[in-house]
Amino acid sequence: MQPVKFYFDFLNQSSRALYILMEASKIPFEAIPISTLKGEHLTGEYRDKVSHFKRLPVIQDDSFLLAESVAIFRHLNREKIVPEHWYPRRNFGRSRVDEFLEWQQRNMGLACSNYFKQKWLLPILGKTSTEETNASLLTERLNQSFKDFENLFLNKNKFVIGDNLSYADLMAICEIDQPKFIGFNPFNHHPKLGQWYEKVRDELGPYYKHVADEFDNKLKTAEKKIPEVMYLQQ
Amino acid sequence: MQPVKFYFDFLNQSSRALYILMEASKIPFEAIPISTLKGEHLTGEYRDKVSHFKRLPVIQDDSFLLAESVAIFRHLNREKIVPEHWYPRRNFGRSRVDEFLEWQQRNMGLACSNYFKQKWLLPILGKTSTEETNASLLTERLNQSFKDFENLFLNKNKFVIGDNLSYADLMAICEIDQPKFIGFNPFNHHPKLGQWYEKVRDELGPYYKHVADEFDNKLKTAEKKIPEVMYLQQ
Repeated sequence: MQPVKFYFDFLNQSSRALYILMEASKIPFEAIPISTLKGEHLTGEYRDKVSHFKRLPVIQDDSFLLAESVAIFRHLNREKIVPEHWYPRRNFGRSRVDEFLEWQQRNMGLACSNYFKQKWLLPILGKTSTEETNASLLTERLNQSFKDFENLFLNKNKFVIGDNLSYADLMAICEIDQPKFIGFNPFNHHPKLGQWYEKVRDELGPYYKHVADEFDNKLKTAEKKIPEVMYLQQ
Repeated sequence: MQPVKFYFDFLNQSSRALYILMEASKIPFEAIPISTLKGEHLTGEYRDKVSHFKRLPVIQDDSFLLAESVAIFRHLNREKIVPEHWYPRRNFGRSRVDEFLEWQQRNMGLACSNYFKQKWLLPILGKTSTEETNASLLTERLNQSFKDFENLFLNKNKFVIGDNLSYADLMAICEIDQPKFIGFNPFNHHPKLGQWYEKVRDELGPYYKHVADEFDNKLKTAEKKIPEVMYLQQ
């Protein structure tokens, strides 16, 4: 069986989640880094032959190209051997993971990636936002989404859908790392979030650490190149 | 087997798509209409016992409550008998449907529901938007998303993922009906969209017609009650 080709960027939360999932599941894959900062996903061969969507991540499984991270997650579950706990059949676990992924895309995920985009990505690219960027509104939305996450998902169980780690936890920690790694403290008013975060990080162990370090490196390298822009943003 | 309890509102695109899917698949269900105009999804028993998410649609399958429409769609496919063409296993059809659903939630679906919210729902409720509402920007985003839909999904096949009708088509037509039924013509600059739309509508036949008529009735009834508001919006 050919290894899956995986087009990704460590700056991107869904890329990190799938990278960790494939490493932890021992799915053979060929990692093909694409630099979103250089705009490599927007032009040339990538746009023409890999993703008309001009998005990351993308996989190529044999000759089958697939975009959209949740679709990729489900594809891997159908076509490869992924340990049961990530997407469990028992007690309608798959339905609960699906429900969380859909909720978070519209809520916490949106708030996290928006914060990252406005506070880090656009300044680094030297661009100004097309939307109204109200710093306190970005923070308010982020805090509200963390509160919703605690109330809706962290009340009863050790992890999001029960006592075992699932893809819901993995996707959530990667989303939360977008604001966290550029200096936002998500645990300030959210102690339950803090406890859950530690448990997930510990459970993911070296798989998480490797990918988180790569993310951190990418942030620091980009900031070094454009220090004056970052200074203005403080 | 108990019929599935289905909490829905015909004003809501995902509610209509799942209603049609269950009718066409002969899945026994008990239809429980919830009026979003009256705010029934935000308070009382619905919020406390049915959906903490305060969202529609929701199903109750035996004692299992599930929100988020794409999660519900997949749950029905796992737990009930849904005809294969809606979510086909062959040729990675399920991955393609998943990819479309995720794309459209962030793109065409967002543009359609935003247009509906700003142009119809908020005025009917006598509310003003918290966001900047720029009428020409709403229209521009809608047209751009229809163009993307044509270019990315309507080039090669009769339907979105191939020669057979799938849930991708059903979700898409229900999304497009949000602006269409309140007076926006989606086919003006999009002939391919028009041809596809007719094929989907014809294929869905009476299942579509029934639900579309209910949607239209709900719109007209609400407008009759608050004619002066609608007049101001013209």
